[in-house]
Amino acid sequence: MATSREIHLAARPHGVPQPTDFALVEVEVPEPADGEVLIRNAYMSVDPSMRPRMNDVKSYLPPFQVGEAMSGGAVGQVVASRNDRVPVGSWVVNWLGWREFALSDGRGLMPVDPAIAPISTALGVLGMPGLTAWVGLLDIGRPEPGETVYVSGAAGAVGSLAGQIAKLKGCRVIGSAGSPEKVAWLQELGFDETFDYRQTDAREALRDGIDLYFDNVGGEALEVALSALRTHGRVVACGAISQYNATERPPGPRNMSYIVTKRLRIEGFIVIDHFDKFPAFLAEVGPWVRDGKVAYRETVVDGLERAPEALLGLLSGENIGKMLVKIGPDA
Amino acid sequence: MATSREIHLAARPHGVPQPTDFALVEVEVPEPADGEVLIRNAYMSVDPSMRPRMNDVKSYLPPFQVGEAMSGGAVGQVVASRNDRVPVGSWVVNWLGWREFALSDGRGLMPVDPAIAPISTALGVLGMPGLTAWVGLLDIGRPEPGETVYVSGAAGAVGSLAGQIAKLKGCRVIGSAGSPEKVAWLQELGFDETFDYRQTDAREALRDGIDLYFDNVGGEALEVALSALRTHGRVVACGAISQYNATERPPGPRNMSYIVTKRLRIEGFIVIDHFDKFPAFLAEVGPWVRDGKVAYRETVVDGLERAPEALLGLLSGENIGKMLVKIGPDA
Repeated sequence: MATSREIHLAARPHGVPQPTDFALVEVEVPEPADGEVLIRNAYMSVDPSMRPRMNDVKSYLPPFQVGEAMSGGAVGQVVASRNDRVPVGSWVVNWLGWREFALSDGRGLMPVDPAIAPISTALGVLGMPGLTAWVGLLDIGRPEPGETVYVSGAAGAVGSLAGQIAKLKGCRVIGSAGSPEKVAWLQELGFDETFDYRQTDAREALRDGIDLYFDNVGGEALEVALSALRTHGRVVACGAISQYNATERPPGPRNMSYIVTKRLRIEGFIVIDHFDKFPAFLAEVGPWVRDGKVAYRETVVDGLERAPEALLGLLSGENIGKMLVKIGPDA
Repeated sequence: MATSREIHLAARPHGVPQPTDFALVEVEVPEPADGEVLIRNAYMSVDPSMRPRMNDVKSYLPPFQVGEAMSGGAVGQVVASRNDRVPVGSWVVNWLGWREFALSDGRGLMPVDPAIAPISTALGVLGMPGLTAWVGLLDIGRPEPGETVYVSGAAGAVGSLAGQIAKLKGCRVIGSAGSPEKVAWLQELGFDETFDYRQTDAREALRDGIDLYFDNVGGEALEVALSALRTHGRVVACGAISQYNATERPPGPRNMSYIVTKRLRIEGFIVIDHFDKFPAFLAEVGPWVRDGKVAYRETVVDGLERAPEALLGLLSGENIGKMLVKIGPDA
């Protein structure tokens, strides 16, 4: 009998997750019932938001349950189908998480055309991280040509696209990241200014002022950005990767009074509220990727059993671009 | 020769202003030159924003200069005119500050019709504080009928109107203030819930959740509001009266991560950016005041020499409604 491996949440971590917080579990590959399909996953997505979901805290997504598979995005091929709308051989994004084989009733599956771009991009630049960057920058941040946009976590899946879109929209773009290799990549991408936040004082790097801060990291970086923002500046609050392993809540910025005096807007968003914009996103960003106007990178960890390691690596900044785990054959 | 008295900034205060930071100065009443008018002020406005302007810090308004009159809004009658557009006898709001007689070249004067409401209202409910409440609540906060709006500093000139407008727009309104007398007035105004923040834990008072926080006080109250805000909640950052005498910057909210997870928007504004909306404001709020749908109160301190005392009183919350200093005969 065929078996499928899954990664389950074994215990809720305190601070940095430990290997014992995860369990590798073998299960029987299920047979699709009427209306169902069986998917063999090729890649699964490793996202910063997975870390807060390991805590028992209600948020915009429900917490993972101890003893169940970690859930999240994955892309795979349908290997058995009793659903006419999803034939065998088709590639789909599913949200069934960290498992080699996934059984779906067809709901929530998104078709992927492997002729457009490698299927892995459906989890990255042409998937949720891409939509996050596009919606966050354009709908929430609303940059004007000529404005200066600062992106933190700029070498990540979201940040690298947000910065490139800002460039395509006529902005001056400053990006920060946490290693010389990441910074070198930002320079390749055409960022106007780049800095390694572990080496350079952000206050100094932003001394000429910014109009928009695309915040992927949370924590102290916001205080520096509030000081650097010009009148009518905006903060797109996208994520807080610097905080997800924290065991204490960080103090907030001591310069919140700038919000009034500089008429700032700080606005948070969650990509799941904006799924309806996915077709418009693909229509704009798809051609950019196809024509090489937007570049992307992926950091691929091989083997389902290494998924916990990939998540820890993501949280400590080891990835460049999208962090993926390869768990099966791709197109 | 006729003399006019003025209050000058004598020294920049550190923390709570002292009597020696102000000087009462007698000057000669000037003669208007061609195009100029001489105004005898009846009331002058005492505003929270005057305190930060006593510091030597560049902000949205220039700092007061040592040795010069404190500036700000005043309403008075034209007693001599060499400007056809502003005849003798007309009532005008001017921005020339803490002086009994003011010479103006006519620019920036706003006509006041004493037949509509007492002229003092041109500095309060029908003046800049009124426009601040109206723009802040409606343009920045954008409340929907049925939403819960929380107003801090609710017994002040801005807060009391913001709360009443929210009621008129179909919202449920919670107001906080700093004395039993103020809270009693909020109840008269029809606020749905009220509390004295010196007596009641705001967390408890806001435990059922809010959709919009109209922040007049700054500082720690924001942390409580961020916790109480529902998904897609908004903060209108209007002022920070709790902080204006502070000598150290307060720590920011420790729960900024809610901005992402609850998709919050925090937006600051300054009324001077919205002067173009003054006619629309008067068209909506004027009839409400005339018809008694909106109530207002004024705390009037008598005599120019008591203006510093009025400012200190405002900053320690001694006023109910608009804080004014009466310095001359009114209509």
